[in-house]
Amino acid sequence: MVQAAALPRNEAGIATVVGILKQKFGDRLQAGQAIREQHGHTTTWINNQAPDAVVFPHSTEEVSQIVKTCAQHKVPVIAFGTGTSLEGHVNAPAGGISVDLSQMNKVLAVHASDLDCAVQPGVTREDLNAHLRDQGLFFPIDPGANASLGGMAATRASGTNAVRYGTMKDNILSLEAVMPDGQIIRTGHRARKSSAGYDLTRLLIGAEGTLGIITELTLRLQGIPEAITSARCSFPTVDAACQAVMMTIQYGVPVARIELLDELSVKAANAYSGLSLPETPLLLLEFHGSEAGAVEQAETFGQIADEFGGTDFAATSTTEERNKLWQARHGMYWASLQLRPGAQGISTDVCVPISRLAECVTAARDKAEELGLMAPIVGHVGDGNFHTLLLIDMDNGDEVARADGFVGWLNDLAISMEGTCTGEHGIGQGKRPYLIKELGAAVSYMDAIKRALDPDNIMNPGKILPRTGN
Amino acid sequence: MVQAAALPRNEAGIATVVGILKQKFGDRLQAGQAIREQHGHTTTWINNQAPDAVVFPHSTEEVSQIVKTCAQHKVPVIAFGTGTSLEGHVNAPAGGISVDLSQMNKVLAVHASDLDCAVQPGVTREDLNAHLRDQGLFFPIDPGANASLGGMAATRASGTNAVRYGTMKDNILSLEAVMPDGQIIRTGHRARKSSAGYDLTRLLIGAEGTLGIITELTLRLQGIPEAITSARCSFPTVDAACQAVMMTIQYGVPVARIELLDELSVKAANAYSGLSLPETPLLLLEFHGSEAGAVEQAETFGQIADEFGGTDFAATSTTEERNKLWQARHGMYWASLQLRPGAQGISTDVCVPISRLAECVTAARDKAEELGLMAPIVGHVGDGNFHTLLLIDMDNGDEVARADGFVGWLNDLAISMEGTCTGEHGIGQGKRPYLIKELGAAVSYMDAIKRALDPDNIMNPGKILPRTGN
Repeated sequence: MVQAAALPRNEAGIATVVGILKQKFGDRLQAGQAIREQHGHTTTWINNQAPDAVVFPHSTEEVSQIVKTCAQHKVPVIAFGTGTSLEGHVNAPAGGISVDLSQMNKVLAVHASDLDCAVQPGVTREDLNAHLRDQGLFFPIDPGANASLGGMAATRASGTNAVRYGTMKDNILSLEAVMPDGQIIRTGHRARKSSAGYDLTRLLIGAEGTLGIITELTLRLQGIPEAITSARCSFPTVDAACQAVMMTIQYGVPVARIELLDELSVKAANAYSGLSLPETPLLLLEFHGSEAGAVEQAETFGQIADEFGGTDFAATSTTEERNKLWQARHGMYWASLQLRPGAQGISTDVCVPISRLAECVTAARDKAEELGLMAPIVGHVGDGNFHTLLLIDMDNGDEVARADGFVGWLNDLAISMEGTCTGEHGIGQGKRPYLIKELGAAVSYMDAIKRALDPDNIMNPGKILPRTGN
Repeated sequence: MVQAAALPRNEAGIATVVGILKQKFGDRLQAGQAIREQHGHTTTWINNQAPDAVVFPHSTEEVSQIVKTCAQHKVPVIAFGTGTSLEGHVNAPAGGISVDLSQMNKVLAVHASDLDCAVQPGVTREDLNAHLRDQGLFFPIDPGANASLGGMAATRASGTNAVRYGTMKDNILSLEAVMPDGQIIRTGHRARKSSAGYDLTRLLIGAEGTLGIITELTLRLQGIPEAITSARCSFPTVDAACQAVMMTIQYGVPVARIELLDELSVKAANAYSGLSLPETPLLLLEFHGSEAGAVEQAETFGQIADEFGGTDFAATSTTEERNKLWQARHGMYWASLQLRPGAQGISTDVCVPISRLAECVTAARDKAEELGLMAPIVGHVGDGNFHTLLLIDMDNGDEVARADGFVGWLNDLAISMEGTCTGEHGIGQGKRPYLIKELGAAVSYMDAIKRALDPDNIMNPGKILPRTGN
């Protein structure tokens, strides 16, 4: 367990706000221990810090009323989507009110001609894609978990096909948000681009609910490609696989996904999914385009892979076979846990320039071995982003300490390689010590913005910024 | 002439700072009238407001020293790239120091494997692309003018191939900047994505130098495509052309450029460039891809165009013929001026959802006619963005007033269509009245950020935000 520090609580304010909100929201305010703990952090080794109550608004106006009430009494407000974040983003270190947006889950409008849509923040990506399918459209960001779109925006999520479609920052046209004083703003409208003033859209994306609560998103959509081709290829070394990735990107192949599984991950996948992949580093790919285009892309990759010693190259365009090919990747988390039954999986993420990726992945694997840690690695390697899943016996204090040391070492390494301590998991509580190592003096301007917009530090306090409180 | 208001001047502070900087920079500080006026606004009808002196730094450290000196004496600092902005961005309504970054013009590093590079802010896009060509790389943003990359970042520029490659906000990995207190920060490093804290990169992009001066840019690059195919097609109406654009985008054709010229623009192009294009709305397109891919894209577009009454479709892949095809677009500004010799061209830009584009362009044309204004229209229509070039006799006060009325009317129309008052020209001085119409309460949070980071309002005062001074 990594102990997230508790912050001073405003007991009187919290009691007052819970009373007011109970009166207003009735059964839509819950304060039972189980539900409160579900709304604290539950996904990794950071300790759970439950809010004092959970409220379920149905409208932007209700969110505004909640925030205004909290602002008046200086009580923390923590936005909650699906709770799938990994760095303690939803914890309530100073207590306060968790605003669960799951009941604001309507797709408000789809503008097929404009390839955009408006959604409430509680809509999940799977629900949105199910809603869009009949119109031949999809929203491309896929962080793995069936997260809410509000949460994905707040954490600047990305995932497997960011290499082609970008991250949340690239796929949101504008936001509606409730600001720390309870005022409702729109950061833009439906133009596909704008140079009108400061980019508040991008400021709120990735702010993890510390500057406001996202209450509506206008998203860019994509047409479902005419053809999708998947491929896999094994490589003798991580280095060879990364060289092939680099060449593919440099060659301008518009690959939609390009995922690396290291030897240990392949071994786990074989055991878990009954596959018989060569137990060497594996690349899994997906190509989107016209029928001819997708096949051409796969063939180009095949030729590149060949140059770097790739073997067992296989490509397919049928849905069934594609699903089979991706089975190894999709089940990776559960497969990895089976490598060490009873262990907890701690996923940590860094991102480096692609030219440093092989070196970084190899060093991470060697370091884990040196520290006696089991740590399969999977990566969104087209972006230079990878995840190490530490499989930890949480009852072994020494092992937990070694794992903690590994995380710090890996973040430092990524930063030293001109990378980032977090490609897509965000800062939350877990990565706060590394933010200042990475960005130095820039963090003081983040702090100045936070103080200007949220002088009482009520919006998700204790997250992102190294300094807490006022 | 549209009169930009003068702001109160800090005469004593300015005199002190000019003295200090003269001592430090010698001949690299210039205060002659001609050079001062060249560093005020020169490109449209907004009046020139010259700075008190122009200084030419050679390093980030020197920019920091200039800003620190100005901060100490509360004197305005206006960053200057090439002076090609259109909304009065470089004017000095309160006087002060123009920081001309043209001598900070080094390409510092090209990382071909990572498809990124580091440049100083005075490097122009043409210089960068000349530098990159041998390595098979290019930087895709093309706002028309051979602008500096620092200026393009500061104004969130885009241009003809934003439909495929995005705008400056999508093509910058990180920035180095001198903040209003003179401190040097880096907003990130070279990772292709990051979720580490507030997005200061995007906050500085489009802030028009009001929050800091960009002193180094880390840019994303693209591989020069294997094949480039260009095409043109005439349409009976603007509506038909826009329908074809919409279908092309919806169909997922990854078109690299898709430009509309209205009848008047085509007429101007024919006269200026000795062409004989049908004098009806014209689309000009460019497709990037593999040999087969680029041709396939052009063919797909040809079929779509056919459905909407497109005629005289022509596509070509040879460089010479492509250049000939694009001649009409590249010479558009000069061609249009020839429609009315002696007139001044005032370019104004809006952006709307693509489904509203035909309606907006048609209404703009009708309105110009109603007001007796000559106003050819060209547009980056894949983004719903278009420019109206008002050809104005500046000695005719009534005509100037009608043109001013037109600009206001068009901005209001774009906003009413869920668009923006500026797709790519920025706010500067000219669009300040419309920013608040478009974004309402959100502007007060921009103001809060500005006050937090620049409490003495020294960084490019009088720009973007409706309220001026402190």
